Amino acid sequence: MHIIDFRGRPPTPAYLAYFGPDRLRWIAERVGARSISRAYQEKSLDLFFAEMDEAGIEYTVALGRNSPELKVGKRRFPAGIIPNDHVLDLQTRYPGRVIGMAGVDVSNRLHNAIDEIDDFVGKRGLKGVFIEPQRAIPGHPSDPACFPIYEKCVELGVPVSIMTGPFAGPDLSYTAPVHIDIVASEFPDLKIIAGHGAWPYVNEIISVAFRHPNVYVSPDVYHFTPGSAAYVEAANGFMADQLLFGTAYPIRPLRQTVEDFSRLGLKPDSLEKALFKNGRALLGLGPR
Amino acid sequence: MHIIDFRGRPPTPAYLAYFGPDRLRWIAERVGARSISRAYQEKSLDLFFAEMDEAGIEYTVALGRNSPELKVGKRRFPAGIIPNDHVLDLQTRYPGRVIGMAGVDVSNRLHNAIDEIDDFVGKRGLKGVFIEPQRAIPGHPSDPACFPIYEKCVELGVPVSIMTGPFAGPDLSYTAPVHIDIVASEFPDLKIIAGHGAWPYVNEIISVAFRHPNVYVSPDVYHFTPGSAAYVEAANGFMADQLLFGTAYPIRPLRQTVEDFSRLGLKPDSLEKALFKNGRALLGLGPR
Amino acid sequence: MHIIDFRGRPPTPAYLAYFGPDRLRWIAERVGARSISRAYQEKSLDLFFAEMDEAGIEYTVALGRNSPELKVGKRRFPAGIIPNDHVLDLQTRYPGRVIGMAGVDVSNRLHNAIDEIDDFVGKRGLKGVFIEPQRAIPGHPSDPACFPIYEKCVELGVPVSIMTGPFAGPDLSYTAPVHIDIVASEFPDLKIIAGHGAWPYVNEIISVAFRHPNVYVSPDVYHFTPGSAAYVEAANGFMADQLLFGTAYPIRPLRQTVEDFSRLGLKPDSLEKALFKNGRALLGLGPR
Repeated sequence: MHIIDFRGRPPTPAYLAYFGPDRLRWIAERVGARSISRAYQEKSLDLFFAEMDEAGIEYTVALGRNSPELKVGKRRFPAGIIPNDHVLDLQTRYPGRVIGMAGVDVSNRLHNAIDEIDDFVGKRGLKGVFIEPQRAIPGHPSDPACFPIYEKCVELGVPVSIMTGPFAGPDLSYTAPVHIDIVASEFPDLKIIAGHGAWPYVNEIISVAFRHPNVYVSPDVYHFTPGSAAYVEAANGFMADQLLFGTAYPIRPLRQTVEDFSRLGLKPDSLEKALFKNGRALLGLGPR
Repeated sequence: MHIIDFRGRPPTPAYLAYFGPDRLRWIAERVGARSISRAYQEKSLDLFFAEMDEAGIEYTVALGRNSPELKVGKRRFPAGIIPNDHVLDLQTRYPGRVIGMAGVDVSNRLHNAIDEIDDFVGKRGLKGVFIEPQRAIPGHPSDPACFPIYEKCVELGVPVSIMTGPFAGPDLSYTAPVHIDIVASEFPDLKIIAGHGAWPYVNEIISVAFRHPNVYVSPDVYHFTPGSAAYVEAANGFMADQLLFGTAYPIRPLRQTVEDFSRLGLKPDSLEKALFKNGRALLGLGPR
Repeated sequence: MHIIDFRGRPPTPAYLAYFGPDRLRWIAERVGARSISRAYQEKSLDLFFAEMDEAGIEYTVALGRNSPELKVGKRRFPAGIIPNDHVLDLQTRYPGRVIGMAGVDVSNRLHNAIDEIDDFVGKRGLKGVFIEPQRAIPGHPSDPACFPIYEKCVELGVPVSIMTGPFAGPDLSYTAPVHIDIVASEFPDLKIIAGHGAWPYVNEIISVAFRHPNVYVSPDVYHFTPGSAAYVEAANGFMADQLLFGTAYPIRPLRQTVEDFSRLGLKPDSLEKALFKNGRALLGLGPR
């Protein structure tokens, strides 16, 4: 197997800072992880690549992240900065194992988003763009402030991964798939990845994928939360070419997640597509 | 069997213009059609009625359509005009096979909607009204601009079929069932058909039917998309008198769809009601 | 078994006035009740407690209700006043059987909501607060008008039960779980019960419970409506400590509902928690 993990976080100090052990254990348990990865616990990249090998994962997609701190009611979510320099360094040092995407700040406070993409994707070779407008503005992915980023991705021929899921923004409404729908209508040539699969809006994101063949769905750990069976149902039908696999490591261990994913009920052809064929085509890696 | 197909499109030039072969093949495959109807391919009404016979379908409900072109982002959806004259002609020429509903333009640009209803339904005998406010205004079915149409339907004692589903309007939000809910509260004596079953909002439209016995749900091809099991669950309980059958022909072939529908898990009594009893009562055809 | 029923309505004249026989029969049938309780029909509290015994229910949670009349389109929902005096009287006369919560009017028209809570909960011992902002204002549970009530509940250390479900307000949008999400973020120390489980928004309320351990879900009769399987799926995983049991008596008979609930597929541990452990902890009753 030559699996592509569309949401991996190599256990480097930058990524480790994002997921402290208490928060990690809490969320890991909630999505059915049976253990916490040894590589994460020992902060070892070598062990991480060994765990990838053991799970049959060839590539891990590492996302840069440039999101301001988010205050939600009385709760605060940390800024979670993963510098693009760091992501580029990982991709450069581990060719064939790490594929990096540039995380850019839609609000242009931390940098100029378009310059950052031109630099890290256009010139230096990162393979896509990751945004969290729900946190940066906070606004929705359909906010016109995001449109120059989408245009730039089309120009460079790279996908944009948009944060969705229950923690995407200040409240649940920020992950409503209608915003992905609007973007896909405005930019029919843009390849869009809905990271974390817009859970809990499973039926809605699937219908967006039904309307738009350029929308890819990567539920990651949200295959293992309730009400998620329709992701699989869809991938056994019209969405076969649009489902992606992700572990959200370190939230879920690599091998357990590959095994659990393989037992979700995907038809052999749909499983093969989700694990690697769709990702290869999307990232332009070509067939093996 | 004396099935009523609540969304049929006889293969006449007017209907054929609406569904070009490329778009048809794309959507047909996405909803699990195993073939494209020969009657459609050969543009033959005779073959169409033969396919109806073979599938056990007595009546097909043909909708007029008067919707301006819809521009969605960079995509354009064609106007899709099916003149009410044409629908009336079909109903007149094929009594006992075709039941027509008048498609009216809520925006009053193509005609005066109330005059059109008075003429085609009140005087000339079409059996209901079909509207697409999400396209015409674009607005929601709960837009007060639609209210005179609902009043007129109540006055004439005919049902209104409202376009819903993933392609109902500029984006997904236009098919949110809350708008049907509002209309049903304002017009408790109005018989409302949610055409295409408001998919993907399955739980929501079912709860609207739960609140309002005058709301009918016609999922048509969206029984065969993911996350749709609750339509059947509901029709095996409180919604037994409110589910309608439709093929959305030519999207799905008649016989395959009757067979697939019959295997969805509906109880015998609920199946019989959905296939014809509910439709007979709704259209005032009386029992056979 | 020492079950706690989180939505019971003892058949006293005040509660009986709320559910007239016609409306009751209509809704009871829609949620799969096989009979109407004898205690309800004979208006007998003795029979009610006997039915509780027979069903293994130790405590019934009786809610006060102070909601103005609701006009929805051409439909009118009666005011449904259950005075807090009456609830307190039941709790006082039947210790060990009835637990009361004070129903307060968020709009402050029927009384000053904070004074009412101070009096009935702070001084006289009711065990929580029940609100219906969707009816009282009508507004959403996230309306700032509700915030002083939430602060008062935190101060007194009691849970707030918020009306949700298909009849919570003028239309379906009023039960959207995003509003519970916002409240839970603003008040992380507030224990929130989503009464009627925000059906039909099953996936959404579950994701709110996923985000917030202080959100409790009490689907009551909406376990038995379509599209509800994810409540159980969730309670077999991360939501084990957050599901509550309720009958919505007299809508559903007590014994049938305990039996049906026990056969929903909950794991033994999750079932035990939902039937009584979660409720005991939430109400501070201590273990038995």
